[in-house]
Amino acid sequence: MTKLIQYEEAGPEVRAVYDAIKAARNVPDVNNFWKAIAVHPPTLRRTWESLSEVMGRGSLDPLTEEMLYLAVSAMNGCAYCIASHTAAARARGMTEAMRGELLAIVAMAAETNRLAEAYAVPIDQAFLDQD
Amino acid sequence: MTKLIQYEEAGPEVRAVYDAIKAARNVPDVNNFWKAIAVHPPTLRRTWESLSEVMGRGSLDPLTEEMLYLAVSAMNGCAYCIASHTAAARARGMTEAMRGELLAIVAMAAETNRLAEAYAVPIDQAFLDQD
Amino acid sequence: MTKLIQYEEAGPEVRAVYDAIKAARNVPDVNNFWKAIAVHPPTLRRTWESLSEVMGRGSLDPLTEEMLYLAVSAMNGCAYCIASHTAAARARGMTEAMRGELLAIVAMAAETNRLAEAYAVPIDQAFLDQD
Amino acid sequence: MTKLIQYEEAGPEVRAVYDAIKAARNVPDVNNFWKAIAVHPPTLRRTWESLSEVMGRGSLDPLTEEMLYLAVSAMNGCAYCIASHTAAARARGMTEAMRGELLAIVAMAAETNRLAEAYAVPIDQAFLDQD
Amino acid sequence: MTKLIQYEEAGPEVRAVYDAIKAARNVPDVNNFWKAIAVHPPTLRRTWESLSEVMGRGSLDPLTEEMLYLAVSAMNGCAYCIASHTAAARARGMTEAMRGELLAIVAMAAETNRLAEAYAVPIDQAFLDQD
Amino acid sequence: MTKLIQYEEAGPEVRAVYDAIKAARNVPDVNNFWKAIAVHPPTLRRTWESLSEVMGRGSLDPLTEEMLYLAVSAMNGCAYCIASHTAAARARGMTEAMRGELLAIVAMAAETNRLAEAYAVPIDQAFLDQD
Repeated sequence: MTKLIQYEEAGPEVRAVYDAIKAARNVPDVNNFWKAIAVHPPTLRRTWESLSEVMGRGSLDPLTEEMLYLAVSAMNGCAYCIASHTAAARARGMTEAMRGELLAIVAMAAETNRLAEAYAVPIDQAFLDQD
Repeated sequence: MTKLIQYEEAGPEVRAVYDAIKAARNVPDVNNFWKAIAVHPPTLRRTWESLSEVMGRGSLDPLTEEMLYLAVSAMNGCAYCIASHTAAARARGMTEAMRGELLAIVAMAAETNRLAEAYAVPIDQAFLDQD
Repeated sequence: MTKLIQYEEAGPEVRAVYDAIKAARNVPDVNNFWKAIAVHPPTLRRTWESLSEVMGRGSLDPLTEEMLYLAVSAMNGCAYCIASHTAAARARGMTEAMRGELLAIVAMAAETNRLAEAYAVPIDQAFLDQD
Repeated sequence: MTKLIQYEEAGPEVRAVYDAIKAARNVPDVNNFWKAIAVHPPTLRRTWESLSEVMGRGSLDPLTEEMLYLAVSAMNGCAYCIASHTAAARARGMTEAMRGELLAIVAMAAETNRLAEAYAVPIDQAFLDQD
Repeated sequence: MTKLIQYEEAGPEVRAVYDAIKAARNVPDVNNFWKAIAVHPPTLRRTWESLSEVMGRGSLDPLTEEMLYLAVSAMNGCAYCIASHTAAARARGMTEAMRGELLAIVAMAAETNRLAEAYAVPIDQAFLDQD
Repeated sequence: MTKLIQYEEAGPEVRAVYDAIKAARNVPDVNNFWKAIAVHPPTLRRTWESLSEVMGRGSLDPLTEEMLYLAVSAMNGCAYCIASHTAAARARGMTEAMRGELLAIVAMAAETNRLAEAYAVPIDQAFLDQD
């Protein structure tokens, strides 16, 4: 069902992005995510540029960034995203204990988010007073 | 629409939880979230106990925990949760630059999660081989 | 921002549906939901017919039906839907204790749903063997 | 990809929870859900304790509870959760007709929830006046 | 796990809907979606009638309708729905370039929707002034 | 709660984006969305650049693009996004009949998406055979 564009069959625009990803990450090949979105080269290029800019900016360390990405992916229940960002977070130092705590927080937040909306909790004045 | 249980009108089971929250957080009063779910005392007590256990476990530092909570809340679009966990994360040291980067990651993850599912990306063998 | 179509200004197609709702529910006026979707009369009519058919079918009692509706609305975080279906469920006999337990189940399901997806739990053979 | 902790390889903390689940449900083995979250023993224990407390409280009968759980799982599109809670609800008496009506309500609620939010329906005063 | 009702084993109510779908779409058999929901014949009939009414109304052309359906399915991450509505949109003329742009818009909307909610953007007066 | 950055108080990086938006859209001021995300200038710039690239590409006409954006926003239940993209779609020619049909499709897709996932419909071979 899903067409994956391999380097050999890719046009120059796609190859340029693949080369950039491989260089930035020091890997021999790009993940399936990139090969799948390469069916639309402008999306491939824009997504890579945007992701490169968002990740690794300086205020947050790379591990925290990947754990945030994993938390959102877990919330969305995106199986591919959970698998790939679990791997990426582990590569940056996420231990099994950290993963367990991270997923516990995601699940707990899913629970309290529901309670806050189901009970229509009004926002505290102190929170409204912050910017 | 939303009934908020104030300390003065609360029964002993609710007061005990309010006292525990105030002591643990060193605050003079509990937030509206707790006052709203107190209409069902078992939910109040269980939520506080569960949250106390999930947060502050040791492998993740308190700021990272709050940022993960905020990331999930932002993904869910829960207005109350975003407001309260933004305040909590700031209290633990989240700067405006960190908040900006965090929300950029959440939004970017929302985007790439959609692409991964819309293109039905098959999970890479390397990801399947991890536990 | 939202146009609400009052009975007096409504055309015959809309009035016919309003009359049907008022008769079926024995109420003097329809809720804002119907007045809002009446800007597109085919949606008003189709939604009322579909809802009439789905609710009150015989295998499930009216209170259970409304509680299921409320559970989905709470999961979606739809403020209007939570408010209106809380009222409807109360009118059919939902006590405050039942509401508290219902919302606790919704929130708990939100939590375990996240864990099931985050840990990519494979479906048990016994579940696959059911129809 | 997913590590499942079998009883034989489990430590005492995990075994104690497995034993409690098997005793409470009178089953020879626990489902994959528990074996998967057992990679993080505190999550296993807390989830079981929380679920035990939420389910079977007295105001709602066990079948209604399971149907509410199934409704939320269907709304979330969690394949594992749908499979396991369909089985659990059937074990408590959900007939095929009841399942059909339940899923029709979930789907219909998904539809009207979207309409209520898309048309930005203001909450009726009568709903605001309830607690 | 999923029971699919084939024409041969179907009762008259289900056969009538299958016949209507095959006639309307000029196809030799119905898709799995219809065979699955046919386990609850009232849902089969109601869904087909409702869908027939919603699609092909006159103000929107059939291709635009299918692309809107695909956009929602992609947002929901419903794998079956993405696959079936991609096929349907292609049959109505969606080119690969159009698909690429559609999915880019869906993903981009997912991103800006998160930003709008995370930053709690107040609605502009000009938008409030429209109906 | 939400800080909106007005042109007068904005730094040069923010002003440059505001100027670009005003020029591209021929409007005297930017919407609140831009003023809110301007608290993090890199997000403001990146979002504008990305949105400019995604919208108006050639294969899809501007009205279809805005209707797709509105469909996703309606699915997400993002009140701000629904309001702003309704206005934008109207400015590009969306009639009230088109809006009514669009929202009916979104709501109907929300319903059938739930049925497809709740019944765990297997993807038809014909859909798997497409790219």
